Amino acid sequence: MQLGFVSAILAELTLEQVLAFAADRGFSCVELMCWPVGRAERKYAGVTHVDVDGLTRARADEILAACERHGVAISGLGYYPNMLDPDPSVAEPAAAHFRKVVESAPLLGVQTVNGFVGRDWARTIDDNWPRFLATWKPLVRLAEERGVRIGIENCPMLFTRDEWPGGKNLFTTPAVWRRAFADLDSPAIGLNYDPSHFVLQDMDPLAPLAEFRDRLFHVHAKDVKIDRAALDEVGRFEFPLRWHQPRIPGYGEIDWGRFMGELQRVGYDGPVCIEVEDDTFGRSLEGRQRAVAVARNVLAPYFG
Amino acid sequence: MQLGFVSAILAELTLEQVLAFAADRGFSCVELMCWPVGRAERKYAGVTHVDVDGLTRARADEILAACERHGVAISGLGYYPNMLDPDPSVAEPAAAHFRKVVESAPLLGVQTVNGFVGRDWARTIDDNWPRFLATWKPLVRLAEERGVRIGIENCPMLFTRDEWPGGKNLFTTPAVWRRAFADLDSPAIGLNYDPSHFVLQDMDPLAPLAEFRDRLFHVHAKDVKIDRAALDEVGRFEFPLRWHQPRIPGYGEIDWGRFMGELQRVGYDGPVCIEVEDDTFGRSLEGRQRAVAVARNVLAPYFG
Amino acid sequence: MQLGFVSAILAELTLEQVLAFAADRGFSCVELMCWPVGRAERKYAGVTHVDVDGLTRARADEILAACERHGVAISGLGYYPNMLDPDPSVAEPAAAHFRKVVESAPLLGVQTVNGFVGRDWARTIDDNWPRFLATWKPLVRLAEERGVRIGIENCPMLFTRDEWPGGKNLFTTPAVWRRAFADLDSPAIGLNYDPSHFVLQDMDPLAPLAEFRDRLFHVHAKDVKIDRAALDEVGRFEFPLRWHQPRIPGYGEIDWGRFMGELQRVGYDGPVCIEVEDDTFGRSLEGRQRAVAVARNVLAPYFG
Amino acid sequence: MQLGFVSAILAELTLEQVLAFAADRGFSCVELMCWPVGRAERKYAGVTHVDVDGLTRARADEILAACERHGVAISGLGYYPNMLDPDPSVAEPAAAHFRKVVESAPLLGVQTVNGFVGRDWARTIDDNWPRFLATWKPLVRLAEERGVRIGIENCPMLFTRDEWPGGKNLFTTPAVWRRAFADLDSPAIGLNYDPSHFVLQDMDPLAPLAEFRDRLFHVHAKDVKIDRAALDEVGRFEFPLRWHQPRIPGYGEIDWGRFMGELQRVGYDGPVCIEVEDDTFGRSLEGRQRAVAVARNVLAPYFG
Amino acid sequence: MQLGFVSAILAELTLEQVLAFAADRGFSCVELMCWPVGRAERKYAGVTHVDVDGLTRARADEILAACERHGVAISGLGYYPNMLDPDPSVAEPAAAHFRKVVESAPLLGVQTVNGFVGRDWARTIDDNWPRFLATWKPLVRLAEERGVRIGIENCPMLFTRDEWPGGKNLFTTPAVWRRAFADLDSPAIGLNYDPSHFVLQDMDPLAPLAEFRDRLFHVHAKDVKIDRAALDEVGRFEFPLRWHQPRIPGYGEIDWGRFMGELQRVGYDGPVCIEVEDDTFGRSLEGRQRAVAVARNVLAPYFG
Amino acid sequence: MQLGFVSAILAELTLEQVLAFAADRGFSCVELMCWPVGRAERKYAGVTHVDVDGLTRARADEILAACERHGVAISGLGYYPNMLDPDPSVAEPAAAHFRKVVESAPLLGVQTVNGFVGRDWARTIDDNWPRFLATWKPLVRLAEERGVRIGIENCPMLFTRDEWPGGKNLFTTPAVWRRAFADLDSPAIGLNYDPSHFVLQDMDPLAPLAEFRDRLFHVHAKDVKIDRAALDEVGRFEFPLRWHQPRIPGYGEIDWGRFMGELQRVGYDGPVCIEVEDDTFGRSLEGRQRAVAVARNVLAPYFG
Repeated sequence: MQLGFVSAILAELTLEQVLAFAADRGFSCVELMCWPVGRAERKYAGVTHVDVDGLTRARADEILAACERHGVAISGLGYYPNMLDPDPSVAEPAAAHFRKVVESAPLLGVQTVNGFVGRDWARTIDDNWPRFLATWKPLVRLAEERGVRIGIENCPMLFTRDEWPGGKNLFTTPAVWRRAFADLDSPAIGLNYDPSHFVLQDMDPLAPLAEFRDRLFHVHAKDVKIDRAALDEVGRFEFPLRWHQPRIPGYGEIDWGRFMGELQRVGYDGPVCIEVEDDTFGRSLEGRQRAVAVARNVLAPYFG
Repeated sequence: MQLGFVSAILAELTLEQVLAFAADRGFSCVELMCWPVGRAERKYAGVTHVDVDGLTRARADEILAACERHGVAISGLGYYPNMLDPDPSVAEPAAAHFRKVVESAPLLGVQTVNGFVGRDWARTIDDNWPRFLATWKPLVRLAEERGVRIGIENCPMLFTRDEWPGGKNLFTTPAVWRRAFADLDSPAIGLNYDPSHFVLQDMDPLAPLAEFRDRLFHVHAKDVKIDRAALDEVGRFEFPLRWHQPRIPGYGEIDWGRFMGELQRVGYDGPVCIEVEDDTFGRSLEGRQRAVAVARNVLAPYFG
Repeated sequence: MQLGFVSAILAELTLEQVLAFAADRGFSCVELMCWPVGRAERKYAGVTHVDVDGLTRARADEILAACERHGVAISGLGYYPNMLDPDPSVAEPAAAHFRKVVESAPLLGVQTVNGFVGRDWARTIDDNWPRFLATWKPLVRLAEERGVRIGIENCPMLFTRDEWPGGKNLFTTPAVWRRAFADLDSPAIGLNYDPSHFVLQDMDPLAPLAEFRDRLFHVHAKDVKIDRAALDEVGRFEFPLRWHQPRIPGYGEIDWGRFMGELQRVGYDGPVCIEVEDDTFGRSLEGRQRAVAVARNVLAPYFG
Repeated sequence: MQLGFVSAILAELTLEQVLAFAADRGFSCVELMCWPVGRAERKYAGVTHVDVDGLTRARADEILAACERHGVAISGLGYYPNMLDPDPSVAEPAAAHFRKVVESAPLLGVQTVNGFVGRDWARTIDDNWPRFLATWKPLVRLAEERGVRIGIENCPMLFTRDEWPGGKNLFTTPAVWRRAFADLDSPAIGLNYDPSHFVLQDMDPLAPLAEFRDRLFHVHAKDVKIDRAALDEVGRFEFPLRWHQPRIPGYGEIDWGRFMGELQRVGYDGPVCIEVEDDTFGRSLEGRQRAVAVARNVLAPYFG
Repeated sequence: MQLGFVSAILAELTLEQVLAFAADRGFSCVELMCWPVGRAERKYAGVTHVDVDGLTRARADEILAACERHGVAISGLGYYPNMLDPDPSVAEPAAAHFRKVVESAPLLGVQTVNGFVGRDWARTIDDNWPRFLATWKPLVRLAEERGVRIGIENCPMLFTRDEWPGGKNLFTTPAVWRRAFADLDSPAIGLNYDPSHFVLQDMDPLAPLAEFRDRLFHVHAKDVKIDRAALDEVGRFEFPLRWHQPRIPGYGEIDWGRFMGELQRVGYDGPVCIEVEDDTFGRSLEGRQRAVAVARNVLAPYFG
Repeated sequence: MQLGFVSAILAELTLEQVLAFAADRGFSCVELMCWPVGRAERKYAGVTHVDVDGLTRARADEILAACERHGVAISGLGYYPNMLDPDPSVAEPAAAHFRKVVESAPLLGVQTVNGFVGRDWARTIDDNWPRFLATWKPLVRLAEERGVRIGIENCPMLFTRDEWPGGKNLFTTPAVWRRAFADLDSPAIGLNYDPSHFVLQDMDPLAPLAEFRDRLFHVHAKDVKIDRAALDEVGRFEFPLRWHQPRIPGYGEIDWGRFMGELQRVGYDGPVCIEVEDDTFGRSLEGRQRAVAVARNVLAPYFG
């Protein structure tokens, strides 16, 4: 396994600066964000550390040279839009850009592209299903052709009122995964697994690792704290932001020794990238840098 | 406190038979269902043990005589429709019939009428609020005038797809209660508290009793079993029927000694009515009668 | 379900007295012991409340008349020898007598015969298997022909040094049951399930009920207390009698509300017979009678 | 074991009424209070159901006849003063009256007299010790001579400011008991064990039963609820009344099944008397009667 | 946050040596002890790393130069006497010396002075209150004038018989803090918070951090192990030294990940100073140095 | 305490390479395996990093020089055969070779020799005892004479069918240790304590440390994961390999902070050597090296 972080947490920095920071703090990889330039539609979104629009061989080589110079690998390319947004003017450009990210990965020698499958949040899973398949079958075929694996993060994207009730990403539970893997029928689609989302949904964050070991393409290391007093006031069916708080690994509900031990046991050997949405370190670049340093200290012992 | 049951569980029996069964099994009270005759719109609904349409003094006296003959009191009148259904042809007759139930209570010497406040299940709590107040202010005023208390059950009414995502009853959490009690500003509105609904929502079923002691008008004794394996498959945000099973007291998650002890501690001295939605005893009348007998055995020791 | 007890606990009493005691204490059934007359080879064995040697229609009618007179049913016939004892002079008479018990059941209108499958305690499960099948296939065929079901108790019979290391009964775990049910391939073989034996083996006593619901022919209600301090001294691999103590339901490790609730959930509708090996009430008849009375009080509420 | 109650909870009733109530509610014994007439110095004290001042054979026979008439035994005589009060005008009459209670017990055929050893609450255990021995050695000798056993309740008598910091009874822990039993060196001194006092002191209420089985002369059945929120505010070193609430068995922290099972296991065969200091049933006679009825329902199943 | 230690643990070393050790082991700050020279009245007391008696600008500059040379900051000045000792010859010099410490802090550019408020241990909190206010109001005013904050440690100072029953420091619980902060009414008085003291008092060591976030001036990192077996012998009301053992962070009851995460969440950004009273490393200087090294390893990851 | 590892995990490496690896990874000691050359009879056995057959002063000096060159000490010599094998051709050479290991230790300046006492796995502890004493008394005398301590590992050596039922090492529990220490009556025999074996036997791995502190000669750091689902299938009496998996410290059931804290508390000051039987890192040399690195990271903080 390789310890890295998600480049979105250093949105203010250039790619070069991101790689320098990673090297300086002893990280061996980074997941690079590939949002379209200039379109930040929500928090943590809209970061462009690799601009895949018209990515050339030359630019790709520059990027790879920078990586080599800093001794930092690219764990994956990340782009997390809602391709199943009911508004086609949101969904269609998202799918088009995601294609570009998939197509760019081989140029950069990157095996994994991460994202969400999206969801029409006002509709049930069943009601989303036909459009989900229609959208994703071609993307999965494209990935197969290009030798790329797509890792879908298991985030419900259900935090605020405008995402209520269904959230903006279908790919949140083993029940959904099984159905999707069966219907898409491709080795190119798998998981960018983040255990904190299972805590949010009151599910065991270790349980699915064994069954889905062959679908574990990428892992996000993020944690969450459940506020029991708040939960007693509003219940689990309320917007989760009222009763949970994103934290870094070490400050949340997950036992990271057990989690890393289970990753090891099921044979996972890929990247583990820290994600920082923990506001307790402050919303500044410096706060996020301190946060990622603490998280690294908590996780680094398990990387030998 | 008085131990009773909800008459809906003996839908096949006449009022006389219900009272005879209650007496025979040592119950001291029954909550009598008052649905409009002939309109059973969902499971457990549509039972009419008291027909409030044109209830006369004479009929009321007959009912009271039967109660006296069997030594069984009426703990409350129950009618649980969705007065906030987006379809006015559902909502309006519901409110009209609820008025009749409130108006009938004094005729029967009954202090408490139980129900739901309803909800447009596709809209958020905030979006439901104006209509909730518009509907309920007059009902609460009516109750005040008639010396009746309305006990709203804290059930989310969110079990199946057609109730997804918001359920058909707003009155599910302390946060909602506080807001409603403040806005309605009346001693005539309170709770028909059922602890199982808090387990369903991952909330502490004892915590609210102290704060809301003055609003505890009626109590339902029902329990629920959480299926952790199922929850690990689909998460808390899925329809609850996939990961919970209604059970009788004694066979679920609630510690009834602690619950009864807390009711005692906060000074509750009203009825505690067993509700049976536990299919494990079979869906027959005889099964429900066995279920209520076991539940009685579990709870009776706490009634001295 | 019907609440009863195992007649072995009243070894000093005649059948008539056993039935009178059962009736007096409100039990609805009794499992009657059918050991050969005069051959008590170990504690709790050797009790003969029904002598199946040459049982005639006339004697059977007398027994049934006594049952009817007292209003107490026979839950099953019990005979628990070691038919796989390495000494043929033990094993062969045991099998021969077990045949007689099976053959007698229809005379008494009894559907279930309970026992152990036995084991050569010095050999592994695999090494016992061929002889197990050779012994049990004919017995199971006999049971099928006679319309009788054989309920094997899941007791390891591993308590003292002479039973070490393997115990005298193979039928102790789901892994063994599955293999046996597959190899014997008959609906006539099932379980006389006693949850305390799973506690002894550090297994969840509720877990197997759902999978084996169709094999639950009879249930024993016994409990056990684990002595953690003793266990810390000698470990689980020592003779269990050093670190556990048989207790009645209510005084041991099992949550009987959960157990009875799970029996109900999986649809079990047969007898639940209390077994008393709890020496804390004294080894006298009177002590065992007090013990069975306390156990009844603990379990009776779940029988409606 | 015999189920009874402490007569102090029915202070308003005459002895005859107490016995009638006990019989009516199915109790087999009562601990009768023997305070001097007219001197109620604190809550729950000062009750005189047997006036030992000048108790005659004739009066004793009347009492015994009343007991026989109602079928209720006297489990013990109770008098709980502070014989080690620093004020001799408190301590000396207390000791003198205690002597009378001991001397009266044989007249009533009662084996056990219950009380406190007392304490100068402002001094440490060590500083109290010499006076404790000087006071108690003669009392214990007297008890031996009269064939009476003295059961000391393990209550710290530390609830309010005037009892702070040491409380008014030394006999609260196994460490003290061992020292006292060694120094007094008599089989006539033992325990009137109340498990709730161990919960108050953050001690395991079952742990001492096995070691002190020969000193268990009498048992009080009372429970207590710890208020964790209050404890987090003031800590365990504050007056306990700020963070605990006396409750009846079933509504507190103790698992009574485990407690009764352990009493049974260690061979205790004496009285278990319910004590009601649970204000949640109201401070009226009727409230205490309801409380004792609920407690009886919780405990009665364990009495066979 | 800055990781440091309390200089009292290196009593044998000079200030220069203390700073050198701190720098060598990677600590960024030290709390320097300021006891009057030569007056060590109890264990861990009497250490003088800064002599405030007649502290001159020149000596202050020397100290600051040493700090700068080693790259180690002064987290606070520490002096922990009992200013409320009933003996004026103890209390008055203590208060006088504390004034000097407060007055010296600005010379050293130090913002925080730590201590105890003291207590007459034989009297209740209420009885101490008037003298507490009389003593502390002027001290707090002085601190305000000098721009210094006083951090009171929440230690009960209740370990041995001569400190029984009340201990030598009132400032032990949120209930006391709220009252004191209200009565002293000054932003210059706050907490030097040590979570181990809450474990000792059976209180949640994380609970008060959120409410008192603005009063958190300094933090001590110490832990404690509760000896449950000893507690079962003597109870929580006995001297705590009989049932607890001071330990370093990592070897006690506190989950330091949760504690540090909560400090972070409430916005604490000050020093966290390790205190070593853990005798298991030996009572030598070398033992304490090893202990502080282990504690640093346990805590350092949380400092990024 | 000193952190090291067991050289058997680097079976492919020469002694020189083992020491180099230890030095490179910051270990301060290694337990060197001393199996007879060429006789690997089971997994993890048969490793010869020191060949004690004809070990000369010169060779010993070479070894010591290598140790000094790398700055790595020898924590102990290890040889773990079954000297109580029922086959004399196994048992006798084992005992003879063990003598040689004991005799070699002084040459290498090593104080501790580690091994098993062995067992005839088909016989009870009692039945093994006479032969155990006959074999071990002379070995213990030899050790005394040579100034060597023998540390017996508490491993049951009961993993596979050929070791069933008793395992190949008697020295597994405090009950056995006490008896052995009493019968052998020598300070030269003690423990090479591995906490994971207590988890396997369902025993508290910390509990024995205090009592046996004087017998703690060496410690192995290994962990184990219990597979509850497998245990529910086969029970604790089945071969342990069906329900447990060896893991490195940090990935198993043991809380290493508590374990190290307790070692510290009881005054243990010897070596703690990591043992790797954790297959999840792969069965290659490189896998074992990564495993030992992760285990070191988990344990190193406790070594100051």
